[in-house]
Amino acid sequence: MRTAICDMLGIELPLLAFSHCRDVVAAVTNAGGFGVLGAVTHTPEQLEHELAWIDEQVGGKPYGVDIIVPEKYEGQGEALSLDDLAARIPPEHHAFVDRLLREHGIDTTDRAELAGRGMNISDRIGERLLDVVFRHPVKLVANALGVPPRYMIDRARAEGVSVAALVGAKEHALRQVEAGVDILVAQGTEAGGHCGEVTTMVLVPEVVEAVKDVREVPVLAAGGIVTGRQMAAAIALGAAGAWTGSVWLTTEEAETAPYTVRKMVAATSRDTVRSRGRTGKPSRQLASAWTRAWDGPDSPGTLPLPLQSLVSEPALRHLDTLAEKGDRGAQELATYWVGQGVGLMNRVRPAKDVVYEIAEDFAEAAERLTGAIGD
Amino acid sequence: MRTAICDMLGIELPLLAFSHCRDVVAAVTNAGGFGVLGAVTHTPEQLEHELAWIDEQVGGKPYGVDIIVPEKYEGQGEALSLDDLAARIPPEHHAFVDRLLREHGIDTTDRAELAGRGMNISDRIGERLLDVVFRHPVKLVANALGVPPRYMIDRARAEGVSVAALVGAKEHALRQVEAGVDILVAQGTEAGGHCGEVTTMVLVPEVVEAVKDVREVPVLAAGGIVTGRQMAAAIALGAAGAWTGSVWLTTEEAETAPYTVRKMVAATSRDTVRSRGRTGKPSRQLASAWTRAWDGPDSPGTLPLPLQSLVSEPALRHLDTLAEKGDRGAQELATYWVGQGVGLMNRVRPAKDVVYEIAEDFAEAAERLTGAIGD
Repeated sequence: MRTAICDMLGIELPLLAFSHCRDVVAAVTNAGGFGVLGAVTHTPEQLEHELAWIDEQVGGKPYGVDIIVPEKYEGQGEALSLDDLAARIPPEHHAFVDRLLREHGIDTTDRAELAGRGMNISDRIGERLLDVVFRHPVKLVANALGVPPRYMIDRARAEGVSVAALVGAKEHALRQVEAGVDILVAQGTEAGGHCGEVTTMVLVPEVVEAVKDVREVPVLAAGGIVTGRQMAAAIALGAAGAWTGSVWLTTEEAETAPYTVRKMVAATSRDTVRSRGRTGKPSRQLASAWTRAWDGPDSPGTLPLPLQSLVSEPALRHLDTLAEKGDRGAQELATYWVGQGVGLMNRVRPAKDVVYEIAEDFAEAAERLTGAIGD
Repeated sequence: MRTAICDMLGIELPLLAFSHCRDVVAAVTNAGGFGVLGAVTHTPEQLEHELAWIDEQVGGKPYGVDIIVPEKYEGQGEALSLDDLAARIPPEHHAFVDRLLREHGIDTTDRAELAGRGMNISDRIGERLLDVVFRHPVKLVANALGVPPRYMIDRARAEGVSVAALVGAKEHALRQVEAGVDILVAQGTEAGGHCGEVTTMVLVPEVVEAVKDVREVPVLAAGGIVTGRQMAAAIALGAAGAWTGSVWLTTEEAETAPYTVRKMVAATSRDTVRSRGRTGKPSRQLASAWTRAWDGPDSPGTLPLPLQSLVSEPALRHLDTLAEKGDRGAQELATYWVGQGVGLMNRVRPAKDVVYEIAEDFAEAAERLTGAIGD
């Protein structure tokens, strides 16, 4: 196969796979796609460790890294530590989580279980992560939540690495192109994680049309894509390929919490919700007692990025552990980011099998379209 | 071209065009697509008049009619007149509209301007409309807002007419197939008018997969489709064709209020909202001061179908008239149903030109996909 993105990244299949799990990244790259490691919760030391492992596994085949340097976040320009940031969380937010857990029969007396890390977003962390990234043969650096900082674009260009940016609106796409990004990921509202309000079916052609007169930038389609027929649809819409995320969460390699995997396999496309309850910005995730509480009338409201994730992530990880042990309350609360495509994710498979099935389904879809025209 | 829907309906292009405007219906049918007249606000006498006109125009070429017989509505089984229904509107809803209009500088002393018709939904109206429909050579009867009543399916079968049903969720699709419908229209959340929450990109493959083991029923994709590349994407997803609506609102033939057409041409995909403020059920429309008021903190809440439309439609039609005369307040309030595809609707053209452009764009998209595979 051949699209602009295949040429640019040196891949056979125009399928990019975002995952926080290095095993998925390596498996997809080794199967002919392009793995992208999500590094937003990594420290530089952890990232170094993960990339060294991936390098060993993929033997020079191409992969990328996704770090998030948002345009706006709490504590911006103040050189705060994570402890400094944590001190800005109002007591009522901790109290809300405490009450929510207790209402679900969960003991909250051990505070250590509810402490821990959220999104790793603070001044200079992006540069420190990039220092690590550029010590490895990455082909792509992706960014989300705004235009990448100047240092990311400049350093990537100097290193011969492509920069991709996720966008949820035409206006954002135009800003990104003006800032100099090499690849746009037009992400529809059906996507898991942070997303806008426009659907993939509309956003992709809208972005393709808007940028084509400015500069020739390949557009990847993201949001809801978990099958090859959807990748074919993306290319019909004018995309150069597909950016996927959710579909890898239920692969054998993924580190998704086991109870959450069971929820995902059972879920339909209507079991997700776009909510601010996890990070403070709207992101799509499994609907659960947790999301309903944050979106409900007794919610204290959500905090700006990354404060909300400092409140939510430690509690949610604790819930994952309890849910796996059979705790009913924790099972009701448990949630994780996933897109509406979860309705089509009905079994657990090795990541490489998913790549091969997507390739096969893609070919069948293309034949279906050719057949419709041929007669 | 050839898909299951082309064979079933005797058309060249698998493009169905829903419109309340008979001129659009005839133009699309005459250009090789399939026009469907939306008859939910028609009386039987008006419908007879419209269908006789269409018959004259299309010279035997195929077209259809869309009537809405919801599974649930206010006054169901009570044999109420429209006056009886109107008497059930609480005074605070009329007062809210009055206040909203006055706040926008609109004189509301002439009550006649704010009286008039809403959706024509009451007991037996569906049967009376069908009596008219079956006196004409229609090929398709479509229904929305639930499983069609038994009499619709039985009479259509006896007359050799196909029955289509609009669905926004997999579970609804399965119920429709069990009830005996011939064609499913899987309508994503990006669609104008009544819609669910799942996007077209996810809903279409989900519905196709769910029904294929039950019975062979062609699935049309709806929601956001205003170009040929999107129709190609729909077929790649497994649909037999596209069901469109919004794109016809800005054609030369359409009876859309002129100021609203200007709003649509200028709108991006982010200028719509899914709101209960027009009919009482969630429907997508241009966001405006009207939708914000009904969805805002001072809203009295919306009424069940069809009461809300008895409150909203007369006021909105009055606003259309004032908006066209240059009234600023009315321009801020004016709204009409339209999908997110409005972001791709950027000029006013004859309906037949839209059909031809969709066909051409479709062919180019199919070539793009073939090209991606060929290399």
